[in-house]
Amino acid sequence: MAGNSIGTLFRLTTFGESHGVAIGGVIDGCPAGVKIDLEKIQQDLDRRRPGQSAIVTQRKEPDTVEFLSGIFEGQSTGTPIGFIIKNANQKSKDYSHIKDTYRPSHADYTYDEKYGVRDYRGGGRSSARETACRVVAGSIAKQLLSSLQFNAYVSTVGHIELNKKYQELDFSEVEKNPVRCPDPAKAKEMETYIKEIRSSGDTVGGIVDCVIRNVPKGLGEPVFDKLHAELGKAMLSINAVKGFEYGSGFAGTTMKGSEHNDQFNQDGSTKTNLSGGIQGGISNGMDIYFRVAFKPVATLMQKQQTINSKGEQVDMQGKGRHDPCVVPRAVPIVEAMAAIVMADYFLQNKSSKI
Amino acid sequence: MAGNSIGTLFRLTTFGESHGVAIGGVIDGCPAGVKIDLEKIQQDLDRRRPGQSAIVTQRKEPDTVEFLSGIFEGQSTGTPIGFIIKNANQKSKDYSHIKDTYRPSHADYTYDEKYGVRDYRGGGRSSARETACRVVAGSIAKQLLSSLQFNAYVSTVGHIELNKKYQELDFSEVEKNPVRCPDPAKAKEMETYIKEIRSSGDTVGGIVDCVIRNVPKGLGEPVFDKLHAELGKAMLSINAVKGFEYGSGFAGTTMKGSEHNDQFNQDGSTKTNLSGGIQGGISNGMDIYFRVAFKPVATLMQKQQTINSKGEQVDMQGKGRHDPCVVPRAVPIVEAMAAIVMADYFLQNKSSKI
Amino acid sequence: MAGNSIGTLFRLTTFGESHGVAIGGVIDGCPAGVKIDLEKIQQDLDRRRPGQSAIVTQRKEPDTVEFLSGIFEGQSTGTPIGFIIKNANQKSKDYSHIKDTYRPSHADYTYDEKYGVRDYRGGGRSSARETACRVVAGSIAKQLLSSLQFNAYVSTVGHIELNKKYQELDFSEVEKNPVRCPDPAKAKEMETYIKEIRSSGDTVGGIVDCVIRNVPKGLGEPVFDKLHAELGKAMLSINAVKGFEYGSGFAGTTMKGSEHNDQFNQDGSTKTNLSGGIQGGISNGMDIYFRVAFKPVATLMQKQQTINSKGEQVDMQGKGRHDPCVVPRAVPIVEAMAAIVMADYFLQNKSSKI
Amino acid sequence: MAGNSIGTLFRLTTFGESHGVAIGGVIDGCPAGVKIDLEKIQQDLDRRRPGQSAIVTQRKEPDTVEFLSGIFEGQSTGTPIGFIIKNANQKSKDYSHIKDTYRPSHADYTYDEKYGVRDYRGGGRSSARETACRVVAGSIAKQLLSSLQFNAYVSTVGHIELNKKYQELDFSEVEKNPVRCPDPAKAKEMETYIKEIRSSGDTVGGIVDCVIRNVPKGLGEPVFDKLHAELGKAMLSINAVKGFEYGSGFAGTTMKGSEHNDQFNQDGSTKTNLSGGIQGGISNGMDIYFRVAFKPVATLMQKQQTINSKGEQVDMQGKGRHDPCVVPRAVPIVEAMAAIVMADYFLQNKSSKI
Repeated sequence: MAGNSIGTLFRLTTFGESHGVAIGGVIDGCPAGVKIDLEKIQQDLDRRRPGQSAIVTQRKEPDTVEFLSGIFEGQSTGTPIGFIIKNANQKSKDYSHIKDTYRPSHADYTYDEKYGVRDYRGGGRSSARETACRVVAGSIAKQLLSSLQFNAYVSTVGHIELNKKYQELDFSEVEKNPVRCPDPAKAKEMETYIKEIRSSGDTVGGIVDCVIRNVPKGLGEPVFDKLHAELGKAMLSINAVKGFEYGSGFAGTTMKGSEHNDQFNQDGSTKTNLSGGIQGGISNGMDIYFRVAFKPVATLMQKQQTINSKGEQVDMQGKGRHDPCVVPRAVPIVEAMAAIVMADYFLQNKSSKI
Repeated sequence: MAGNSIGTLFRLTTFGESHGVAIGGVIDGCPAGVKIDLEKIQQDLDRRRPGQSAIVTQRKEPDTVEFLSGIFEGQSTGTPIGFIIKNANQKSKDYSHIKDTYRPSHADYTYDEKYGVRDYRGGGRSSARETACRVVAGSIAKQLLSSLQFNAYVSTVGHIELNKKYQELDFSEVEKNPVRCPDPAKAKEMETYIKEIRSSGDTVGGIVDCVIRNVPKGLGEPVFDKLHAELGKAMLSINAVKGFEYGSGFAGTTMKGSEHNDQFNQDGSTKTNLSGGIQGGISNGMDIYFRVAFKPVATLMQKQQTINSKGEQVDMQGKGRHDPCVVPRAVPIVEAMAAIVMADYFLQNKSSKI
Repeated sequence: MAGNSIGTLFRLTTFGESHGVAIGGVIDGCPAGVKIDLEKIQQDLDRRRPGQSAIVTQRKEPDTVEFLSGIFEGQSTGTPIGFIIKNANQKSKDYSHIKDTYRPSHADYTYDEKYGVRDYRGGGRSSARETACRVVAGSIAKQLLSSLQFNAYVSTVGHIELNKKYQELDFSEVEKNPVRCPDPAKAKEMETYIKEIRSSGDTVGGIVDCVIRNVPKGLGEPVFDKLHAELGKAMLSINAVKGFEYGSGFAGTTMKGSEHNDQFNQDGSTKTNLSGGIQGGISNGMDIYFRVAFKPVATLMQKQQTINSKGEQVDMQGKGRHDPCVVPRAVPIVEAMAAIVMADYFLQNKSSKI
Repeated sequence: MAGNSIGTLFRLTTFGESHGVAIGGVIDGCPAGVKIDLEKIQQDLDRRRPGQSAIVTQRKEPDTVEFLSGIFEGQSTGTPIGFIIKNANQKSKDYSHIKDTYRPSHADYTYDEKYGVRDYRGGGRSSARETACRVVAGSIAKQLLSSLQFNAYVSTVGHIELNKKYQELDFSEVEKNPVRCPDPAKAKEMETYIKEIRSSGDTVGGIVDCVIRNVPKGLGEPVFDKLHAELGKAMLSINAVKGFEYGSGFAGTTMKGSEHNDQFNQDGSTKTNLSGGIQGGISNGMDIYFRVAFKPVATLMQKQQTINSKGEQVDMQGKGRHDPCVVPRAVPIVEAMAAIVMADYFLQNKSSKI
């Protein structure tokens, strides 16, 4: 498995390099009869798009999705949904100067080690541009799961932390600021910090939180394919992610069992939800929430020393237009991956009982 | 996919309930010609076994593995390796009093919601007893990957942190104390704390760190099946795990790119290793290291209030012999899952170039 | 994928060599709540068992299945069903004389080429003994699909053909004669012929037909996983099978479209059924029927010339107790594989519409 | 698994309806470093293309493939190869008259039963147009396996049989006549017959034979994924196929073991090859050969009675330009599917030994 697919019954396969003709994907297994709102898909793409605000890369990519199959008269037909997003930036520039150079903390070196050849125009296949295809599939997954709510948001940028529980937040604020932090004051602080970082040619990391509400009980498969294990894998597969935790997470390791156990109410809901909506790998109907850690972007607008494929030391300097902080654009990607995973379990769960 | 398998080319499928006749598994895809040392497998099982020390559950389970196929004259034959571990505790006691009771923060409630029926004797399928099968497969994976080193260890118990980089540690200390912390002083402190917790009928969480050394370059599949994404999924599939981070992890989110990027040496190794041995989802030959967060065990030796399947509130009290802290026994499980994941990528990587 | 599993949602993995401790398997994905009649499973096993009649091998194998998990209080729990069948003939005889000899038209040579090592005791993993595990899983699949009927029967032995359409047959005759041909006169003729063949130390091939009735409409997945394609693969995976055809089959190639098209009745059923119950890879509710060709058994009770692993010519003579014709014992295996395939599609189909 | 993918390590996923914007596919797992000759791919497509001769459909479809990713500077990069083939015939005509009509022996009825909705423009997803994508992938698989030879050809059309062993044939004749039968005299006879059939508005079936030469030993996975089982599935997944046999096939069922066994030469080759190059599901290095049965095309240029979705009887008459016999255009499809299957096993086999 060369690793370009995710999901079993709701399955996304993507293809495409950052500077090829187009990127695209195939969604196989979307059930027939889902009403597909193409505008909602484009809206989600626009949330991920370069150039959407002053604090993200100013690259020009309209990111318009074209559907080639699987949708007919406004609804899914059960056949595979093929789509492409043309690359605006594909013009063949002269890349010869970076052809043999390995950018630090990028995938250039490891791709060469693994494959022996590499598309050296930009990030090639390792570019986060691939995630646009995930947003398309995630947007369709959300429409399949129309009764669930997926809310991701930025909770930290560098050292600036939101420090509020999700229950205290107003998610309608998320799209009102370019950082996608639901607290306007913190958002402003984060925005200012990102601009500072950018002006120094540097980058910074951050954390995206996500809440899934109105989850049916019983989703997830025990043992290896636990619901949170697949959510974790899906999040860790996003470019630049270094960590994942759900429910009480790393902080829960310091607690005692008597503090951590979630007591039941008589209707099966729980008084607390340190479990994060998942017990034994299966949803219990409470909110699912998790956090995703993103490292600082590796491409700097500063001079760095590195090596070329002959092992010679060379200097390099990031050119073009890169993100100083990836988390604002990562918010729709986190939501998309969450929706893809949940759609797969939703379909799988239909076969758990006779 | 009902979720009881992991891996593509090196694939483990497990079966069995905690109080059934036996648990067991099938390892499909182990290449032919691997010399199999059965004693090493039993040693790994003994590291996970109940009753191994004063700070773990005192249940009696010899956990002796019997191989039924796939090994002939001391080596693997390429055919599936079937094995069973008989349950010593399978005697049919009277479970009627807990039959309809949902233990807080266990999987009883969610299994009932998902399947409509449940093996109510002990944890059934959701019991961590299943992980013994993972240890068997992991031990074989380690023998397949004999040039790699897998070293897991306990780095925190509750609030007691080791606070040392793995490079400063002497891994030969790990098996010398019951906590499996490589620092003898900290280990003692942790042991004392676990005993305290146990005497209060309570439980506590902790963190297991793991280092994989001597990793070939080029392992991992880009995009969805990134090496760290599968490691993360594998770790999150272990009972009680709430979080996973690798390389710089959550702490890396606060760093600047200029601090976080790993500069190359001329041989392709890197001066720092905040990447954690993986770039773009593919190993770069540096050490892989990651951390796994375990919540406190849900079974307490205290009275708890809970509900039964009719939604009535009932009292319950843990009986028998449970672990006050899961991390000492989790160490070999973390190593096993790491080895299973690496074995799969090792085999997959054979097809990456012509 | 080392090839020891079949199915996606209803998934069987088998393990075990003919002369190891035991063979066995894991059924993953059987939905919870299926009433499991263990006697019916043993009855199906007894139909495949050696020694059941005078025209099959007289080897002694009780073939008693032991379930280890996944069934509780008479019904499936949704967790994996693990089972083993102990090998009665596992005693370590002296196999050194055949250790390096390749039996003609067996898998000895190809296993050595593929794996470099081989369990030389009997057929090892390539033995048809493995199919006992398929019968166990198939019997459970039939119980899951209790409203469908699976009827396989012998339609030819060597040149002796039944030459009747399945609609003319009384399937209650099948189990009344050792050949499993539903026409008593033909059955007698076939039985006599098999005895003749056996007395000459030779073997002969034959054909098994199978009919599946009361099939729900809509089972099957288009394009690569067409219902008949999976049925074909499942049948071709049975030892000694050389061909598969369904509906009009090879004979249909000589027909004109105007003769071959199945005209509709007003209720959606068809006046003829040359399609064999499947159109575009999806069941249309008509009977599914197909034919499976078995070659003559390769083990002869005659002297044959062959080679050893050094390429030296050596003589060999089959010893022990082999089947002169495989089709009577293949009947329950064909039914089992059909049921496994149908169970998988039955579960998959639950996710085809919202 | 919605069934639009084939293969594990060399994996093709296709999408697209006959009258949508485009059809296309993704090849995941093609190793890096395969030299890709785009002209050879287009040549294979041209062998499948409508309008290529007087005896096939005269529909206009240039079938030009556009690669979007995975090929760089003339070779595969190891990343997914995405491609599309635009539909020339996609103009939205008025299909309202056939919208609710079920064509006999087509997939209209079963798609409606399965999905509840259907793209009623032409065959939609069930159209054999999808096989163009298979030809693209097969052509790349052949380039990966450049030392193997894949030769398919027409061996019967209706009652007209070639009746020659493949060893007697000159495969260079295949592309010299529109029928793709390697015997010029028989080809002429078949061509005349197809023209007769067409002039009567009818259709006829036929058989395609295929030989794979220069096969490495050891390809195939035992038990469920036997080499011939996957070949069979792949062939049965081609539109209109009703049967598959390999080696001695159905005729082998009438033979005795003493006639059927393939005796070894001292170099491990066999004196005869009734096994068809595969023993125990694994290639033995001899030629692989098999036969694929195609039913007559269901679309007739005659009036037929049928029903609509309300169950009312209606008359219909095929319009447009259909194939009177599918086998001439099926030859490159059979080769393509054979190459895809062999490529997958070739890659899988790299992990069979350490």
